[in-house]
Amino acid sequence: MQMPDDIAKLANEVIAALKAQGLTIATAESCTGGLVAGALTSVSGSSDAVYGGFVTYANEAKIAMVGVPFALLRQFGAVSKEVALAMAEGAMAAAGTHIAVAVTGIAGPDGGSETKPVGLVHFAVASGEETRHLKKSFDPTWSRDQIRHASVVEALKLVKKSIG
Amino acid sequence: MQMPDDIAKLANEVIAALKAQGLTIATAESCTGGLVAGALTSVSGSSDAVYGGFVTYANEAKIAMVGVPFALLRQFGAVSKEVALAMAEGAMAAAGTHIAVAVTGIAGPDGGSETKPVGLVHFAVASGEETRHLKKSFDPTWSRDQIRHASVVEALKLVKKSIG
Repeated sequence: MQMPDDIAKLANEVIAALKAQGLTIATAESCTGGLVAGALTSVSGSSDAVYGGFVTYANEAKIAMVGVPFALLRQFGAVSKEVALAMAEGAMAAAGTHIAVAVTGIAGPDGGSETKPVGLVHFAVASGEETRHLKKSFDPTWSRDQIRHASVVEALKLVKKSIG
Repeated sequence: MQMPDDIAKLANEVIAALKAQGLTIATAESCTGGLVAGALTSVSGSSDAVYGGFVTYANEAKIAMVGVPFALLRQFGAVSKEVALAMAEGAMAAAGTHIAVAVTGIAGPDGGSETKPVGLVHFAVASGEETRHLKKSFDPTWSRDQIRHASVVEALKLVKKSIG
């Protein structure tokens, strides 16, 4: 399955940067459903850097797979800065990698609300040194495919920025 | 990110069949690296059926995430019927879903050997009732993208067959 050009380019850059620095990565994905991991592993030789990933689609999976606290899901909802950060930190801990990237958002067309519209996506990257968070509000008229595509791009960009 | 037409069609059929029967699914992916989960979650409303998935790219991830026995990896290697079955059964147990699908193979261009050439992929689907295994030997001259594409297709077909 061929990755779109922009995603393939970013995935190659991220894997090259990780390998150059001897770093390993894991993913924790909700709305992108495995596509960030799919992009990273599209790169030949990515096994030097990619440990694996968690597709934490259901809230129960966020709790069971990467230890997102139930209380955070209750208080802030699955699509929140707090849960994105907990997913990234939990994935890094569960996988034992240097870095983990997390994505949680509303890809639509259903599931949006006034406060959390379709297109709202929270990203987080955890590393030993720091944790980054990014919030994006993509155009709610975009298709599910478009929002997931843009989310994979932003996730890879955030990883790239984090590893410098 | 748009799924290729054949994958999108199969993913829609699988999700519809799962929902019609009230079944839940989890994935355990090595060479496809999250793309089977990415395909399933490309379907709007898939959260009714998809719990989540494990991208068990490294051998260590196969052990830690879905409980593949170290002895099986040692004896048969990561790309084997035995490990595919253990991945599917382990994912079903770890996720607590009705069904789990597993993929492990050699997408190339590196990593092939005389006994396990590029293009060799083992698939397994576990359910409460039965476990299915499928071995495919895709054309070793195919690109990594082509082998991963064909692997996603076969994984979805095997799930579809398993749920009838």
